Amino acid sequence: MANKIVKPSTLPGFIEWLPADQIAFNKMMDTIRKNYEKFGFIPVDTPVIEKSEVLLAKGGGDTEKQIYRFTKGDSDLSLRFDLTVPLARFVAQHMSELTFPFRRYQIGKVYRGERNQKGRFREFYQCDIDIIGNGKLSIINDAEIPSIIYSTFTDLGFDSFTIHINNRKVLNGFFDAVGVDNKVDTLRIVDKLDKIGIEAVKEELKGLGLTDESVARIEEFINITGSNDEVLEGLKKLNLDNEEFTLGLEELSKVVYYIRQFGVPDKNFMVDLKIARGLDYYTGTVYETILNDYPGIGSVCSGGRYDNLAEYYTTQKLPGVGISIGLSRLFYQLKEAGFFKESVSSTLTKALVVPMDENVGYSINVATGLKNAGIPSEVFFEDGKFVKKLNYANKLGIPYVIIIGGDEIASGILTLKDMRSGEQFKLTVEEIINKING
Amino acid sequence: MANKIVKPSTLPGFIEWLPADQIAFNKMMDTIRKNYEKFGFIPVDTPVIEKSEVLLAKGGGDTEKQIYRFTKGDSDLSLRFDLTVPLARFVAQHMSELTFPFRRYQIGKVYRGERNQKGRFREFYQCDIDIIGNGKLSIINDAEIPSIIYSTFTDLGFDSFTIHINNRKVLNGFFDAVGVDNKVDTLRIVDKLDKIGIEAVKEELKGLGLTDESVARIEEFINITGSNDEVLEGLKKLNLDNEEFTLGLEELSKVVYYIRQFGVPDKNFMVDLKIARGLDYYTGTVYETILNDYPGIGSVCSGGRYDNLAEYYTTQKLPGVGISIGLSRLFYQLKEAGFFKESVSSTLTKALVVPMDENVGYSINVATGLKNAGIPSEVFFEDGKFVKKLNYANKLGIPYVIIIGGDEIASGILTLKDMRSGEQFKLTVEEIINKING
Repeated sequence: MANKIVKPSTLPGFIEWLPADQIAFNKMMDTIRKNYEKFGFIPVDTPVIEKSEVLLAKGGGDTEKQIYRFTKGDSDLSLRFDLTVPLARFVAQHMSELTFPFRRYQIGKVYRGERNQKGRFREFYQCDIDIIGNGKLSIINDAEIPSIIYSTFTDLGFDSFTIHINNRKVLNGFFDAVGVDNKVDTLRIVDKLDKIGIEAVKEELKGLGLTDESVARIEEFINITGSNDEVLEGLKKLNLDNEEFTLGLEELSKVVYYIRQFGVPDKNFMVDLKIARGLDYYTGTVYETILNDYPGIGSVCSGGRYDNLAEYYTTQKLPGVGISIGLSRLFYQLKEAGFFKESVSSTLTKALVVPMDENVGYSINVATGLKNAGIPSEVFFEDGKFVKKLNYANKLGIPYVIIIGGDEIASGILTLKDMRSGEQFKLTVEEIINKING
Repeated sequence: MANKIVKPSTLPGFIEWLPADQIAFNKMMDTIRKNYEKFGFIPVDTPVIEKSEVLLAKGGGDTEKQIYRFTKGDSDLSLRFDLTVPLARFVAQHMSELTFPFRRYQIGKVYRGERNQKGRFREFYQCDIDIIGNGKLSIINDAEIPSIIYSTFTDLGFDSFTIHINNRKVLNGFFDAVGVDNKVDTLRIVDKLDKIGIEAVKEELKGLGLTDESVARIEEFINITGSNDEVLEGLKKLNLDNEEFTLGLEELSKVVYYIRQFGVPDKNFMVDLKIARGLDYYTGTVYETILNDYPGIGSVCSGGRYDNLAEYYTTQKLPGVGISIGLSRLFYQLKEAGFFKESVSSTLTKALVVPMDENVGYSINVATGLKNAGIPSEVFFEDGKFVKKLNYANKLGIPYVIIIGGDEIASGILTLKDMRSGEQFKLTVEEIINKING
């Protein structure tokens, strides 16, 4: 009885990669993880599904609209839409069992029912680190974060990228000093500068009811540019009598000082008074990271300092600082931009052992030897002509084929074919291992 | 304004681990992944959410009852309940872009709304490999699978485990030969032997309407035991004139022959006529793996050969063979059984650098040197007494602390404290790196 055939397809906005891309994706994820672990971050893996009342404790805004929420039995469930809210819940729930400062990383899928468009996914990976203090947390942590970004993106193969740094207290204090009441909306508008340009920003600011004088001061402020030291100097020269501004400037100056101690070159970070991060969540240092050869991607790694991670789950004050890499989107955009230039392989296998007849035992032994030497290997067991077997290696991009017939078994001298150059060598297993590992 | 506090908690059946356990869990997952990759399996990462019509194309049974299914907009969505159905969909969908035999691995979370009970999770990791042929697939692949199980569980730290192997054709053919009509139900009952015992099995078989003669032959059959060669010999001696039985016996004999070629010791696998696997999905070789020191866990790695992976998504015949490790349950059971005896650390950090005063630049440099030498390291930046800083290392289980004050900075000779032994050493950074890496 034939089955009814269902057309095999995935949901719009849900990406999956074919092998060559998946291998490249995993390599990036492994590099990020390795860097996070090198800096002493501890893995956490919270459930994808949580109680809706927990995930929506804060509520409001796009979150409620975009969340995947449903019931099963009498449970009201939601899929996590970021890794920060689950972290807040995790830390509040397990506070007495954790050691502070708590340095955690989490790499996992999150879900947002966004409008379906190119390069926007409804299921995507975030790679987060956060350092959470119990009551307080040294400002030096804010300077360590850029050093982790620097190490990670250097390891990912980028040499030209800039970590943009600002401080929300500097912004808030400045707005107070120049008579801006509606700071949250003002920040949101300033944050759009790169997207909409200065004229549109000024229009929107006026639309908020700001005076021409205030708007002019804001324009003057975001035009303080130059080297990191010049920007700090420019802020000092404003001579603003505002406590929050002064505190923010002090923090920003310390962060710049310590970032240099962490060995991040000045060419890789800049104090940028234009960035604010859209979220009302941040209270101090904020970060955005731009790949200078791919500016269209926007920020590839963002985050900042917050005063209170888990205010919806505990009365304990938990300040922290963290960043997130939206890996799925980054990978997609880099792929579209042609970043992955080298011919990629559709397999991790380095050597295919091809037995020329049904006597496969010797071939199995050879492959086992290679695997024990750390070389991912396979034996081709299927029937067929020799050319079909070579074709399997070719299509997958396996770099080496080892051919084993009666002569090879008798002599112990095997034929190694380099699939990229087409060259053939007569070698022992030992020599083959050295050549491939070499 | 104080927020309303929501009690931080997770849903019943949804597990998350504290750092020490998460680190041990990840180590197991990494070991499994490393082994799968060594054998040439290619990573695939399908979405957690799929169209309900796709995941439920087969439908029926527990699946429909346990699945997490919901709507968003006008989409009917479901969370995957295993990694096999998504694999079938993936292969059918991308057939023309894949190379066969297609060796894929997938490690990911799956969802089943099972009755909540100890050690049963509603969100859990599966670690799957499958080898999929296009039209046909050599029986030698069925023998390679146990060699992957052997390699993986050996690397996981087990020395006493047994891979139980049987063949559904042997069972089916035998049942035909002794007059069993209702083979599916008979298989299901025989499969319960270890759980309910021989007498209960006989009762249930009689309940199916089997004659005493048939039940006696079945008992005789499942009592064919001994060495692998003795069991194969015992099957031959049955002298059954049944085509399927003969074919199954031939397959089983070949599998045993090649398993030995793959270097799996006879003490680690046994032909076991009692295992059938509950699923009607399998058509040839079947596997279960028992940790002999933890028999109560049941099978920790199961799978088998099937004729047709994707019959609900394509008319193309795609035979395959695969296994799955239910890692969340395995980890939980091993933890309960006291498997993780060694004192586990709650961090991956190997060295904590403790500056004795506010001059942290030198300490940062030391930590950077350690990280560049592959040693995960942190600097303790928070204020507080020395004992508080040491306590951080103690609580997390960081093995080494490096103490840096004015004398150390002046001389370049640092104090290294081994937190396990309490010993202190005066060493240069180079010497510290060699000692920790040594």
